[in-house]
Amino acid sequence: MITVPTLILDEEKCRQNIKRMAEVARASVTSFRPHFKTHVSAEIGEWFREEGVKKITVSSLRMAEYFARAGWDDILVAFPFNLPEIELASRLASEVNLSLLVESNDVASFLSANLGSTCNVYIKIDTGLRRTGIPHDDYEEVARLADHITSLRNLNLKGLLTHAGHSYKARSHNEILAVHNSSLKAISDLHSGLSERFPGLIVSVGDTPGCSVAGDFSMVAEIRPGNFVFYDYTQVLIGSCSPEQVAVAMACPVVAVHPDRCTVILYGGAIHFSRESVTLGDGRTVYGAVVRNSGNRWGGLYDGAYLTGMSQEHGIVTVPPSMANHYKPGDIIMILPAHSCITAHVMGEYRTCEGRIIERMR
Amino acid sequence: MITVPTLILDEEKCRQNIKRMAEVARASVTSFRPHFKTHVSAEIGEWFREEGVKKITVSSLRMAEYFARAGWDDILVAFPFNLPEIELASRLASEVNLSLLVESNDVASFLSANLGSTCNVYIKIDTGLRRTGIPHDDYEEVARLADHITSLRNLNLKGLLTHAGHSYKARSHNEILAVHNSSLKAISDLHSGLSERFPGLIVSVGDTPGCSVAGDFSMVAEIRPGNFVFYDYTQVLIGSCSPEQVAVAMACPVVAVHPDRCTVILYGGAIHFSRESVTLGDGRTVYGAVVRNSGNRWGGLYDGAYLTGMSQEHGIVTVPPSMANHYKPGDIIMILPAHSCITAHVMGEYRTCEGRIIERMR
Repeated sequence: MITVPTLILDEEKCRQNIKRMAEVARASVTSFRPHFKTHVSAEIGEWFREEGVKKITVSSLRMAEYFARAGWDDILVAFPFNLPEIELASRLASEVNLSLLVESNDVASFLSANLGSTCNVYIKIDTGLRRTGIPHDDYEEVARLADHITSLRNLNLKGLLTHAGHSYKARSHNEILAVHNSSLKAISDLHSGLSERFPGLIVSVGDTPGCSVAGDFSMVAEIRPGNFVFYDYTQVLIGSCSPEQVAVAMACPVVAVHPDRCTVILYGGAIHFSRESVTLGDGRTVYGAVVRNSGNRWGGLYDGAYLTGMSQEHGIVTVPPSMANHYKPGDIIMILPAHSCITAHVMGEYRTCEGRIIERMR
Repeated sequence: MITVPTLILDEEKCRQNIKRMAEVARASVTSFRPHFKTHVSAEIGEWFREEGVKKITVSSLRMAEYFARAGWDDILVAFPFNLPEIELASRLASEVNLSLLVESNDVASFLSANLGSTCNVYIKIDTGLRRTGIPHDDYEEVARLADHITSLRNLNLKGLLTHAGHSYKARSHNEILAVHNSSLKAISDLHSGLSERFPGLIVSVGDTPGCSVAGDFSMVAEIRPGNFVFYDYTQVLIGSCSPEQVAVAMACPVVAVHPDRCTVILYGGAIHFSRESVTLGDGRTVYGAVVRNSGNRWGGLYDGAYLTGMSQEHGIVTVPPSMANHYKPGDIIMILPAHSCITAHVMGEYRTCEGRIIERMR
């Protein structure tokens, strides 16, 4: 029985999502190096292993350590190398096939000088997100860094890596494909220019929208999508998945109702959902979308019912007038979160529809 | 040494904040029932006890249980009662002087029928925030509920409670006072109308901005501010405190720099800060403000340096052109978070300037 805000995981949907993405990779004869930052669970990691996955991506050295302990031995930390963690990096490099991400000569030099054993290095390339990385059209800068890395001990230059996260602004298949194709062209052009000087250099890409919608990845060496393992309401709006593919939902008790203003107050706020939001077509910002539910399972979306506000423990759901009297205190309401990665992080564990607890890294 | 995103707590500033608010309450001869939802730490709770605090407020039954175990025996759960947790409520009511919050006859009836022992009940009044509660001008509805509660076994009608959270939209002392005074007048008028029929009914108020700025609370029985224990950058902008009073700061390693666009990339993102934000006077949304730092301590704000973007693990700090080359990878940057309550929740523990770890409820 659900008594407090609970993150429910539909294991079957989740396994389907994993299987589908593994098939996309197989069909393109590209390497599948899924990002584990969304689920961060050794148990869910095993579901990937069952689909033949052998290499993974994580977003921190601590996460790399967690999955190394869970038996993964080919791990890419797809986050700019964090200098103060050199000791942990050095230890991991001696234990597993570790890959790190760099974007400056200084960081590469520091790594080389302080690592006790060899690790692989990817160069972070910015193909339009403008978060970090070397701009894809700055061939000289990339070549200089690649030369530098090649000259250093302990570092094995492995590839060019990009995350086309600007695909999250897309709102249709065509918009996703436009971002995906331009990002792919940008990194491929850069790669072509470098491949003679740096033979064996690979290309690694990996945003969930692009990987969900584009069919052919035969031109890249590896894909690293992560969010697809659960998907979420943002991915539904982007067009990466259908609502039925979303594998996690928050179940929250109703604590008060205000039929006069079509709002329902939940036990479930910022410390449960996080405050990740998504903007609807009409300009409203929402934190999730309400689904029909029965017991620990859920069905389709209600039309026009959203999590529209929250404070630390309160959630405010706004429903259409036809649903003004739909809920009463003590009912359980289920919501597809705006961003499953962060909701899963703040919730700290999953409960399957069958009631089993699945743990995450703490 | 700081190697990963770390929440630093300045114990001295925190104790000063507690002392100051305890003095505000003493000066007004009102009862101080601080909200513990911000720190959620048994150890920090003891610092309140040293200031003579005997009653506390929490925002969930689980939090009530945590503090009951830490020796607190007069606990108000200032959140609409959550029916599925009746068992826990019943147990707590038998162990401590428990107060619960209701706003409907049905919830009151349920409580009465299912509690094993007596508890106090506050009626939640909406004085303008429009989150939940009975509107302050609906005298009939409040009187009906008060009558109903009085008629039920196990329930002891104790007070009218409001949270004037709309004070968070204020941006000056005068604006805070305007919200505070109108909220106070609304609940006092309601209370005056009811006090003859319900003698002994008290008034409980408690937003941090109002309690920080208004000097006199002699007209209310108790105040329940919470955030003031740490304050945060939002409270600085509201005008509740000075930057020097903020008792927590996030310390994050720099992982990349982009002087050409005046951005600094941090290891520190949504899973560390949370995505709580605040809007500056110029309309920009920021997640925190950068302070000068030296070792584990921090000083004043840098002018125009803010945490302006984030993803799961990345933070993007935008600095003024004069600071474009101020940071390099491996440096530690310190940031006053937009909302300390949620940042503290996601971080899960504190590290004092002296390096001691202070635990929170897990």
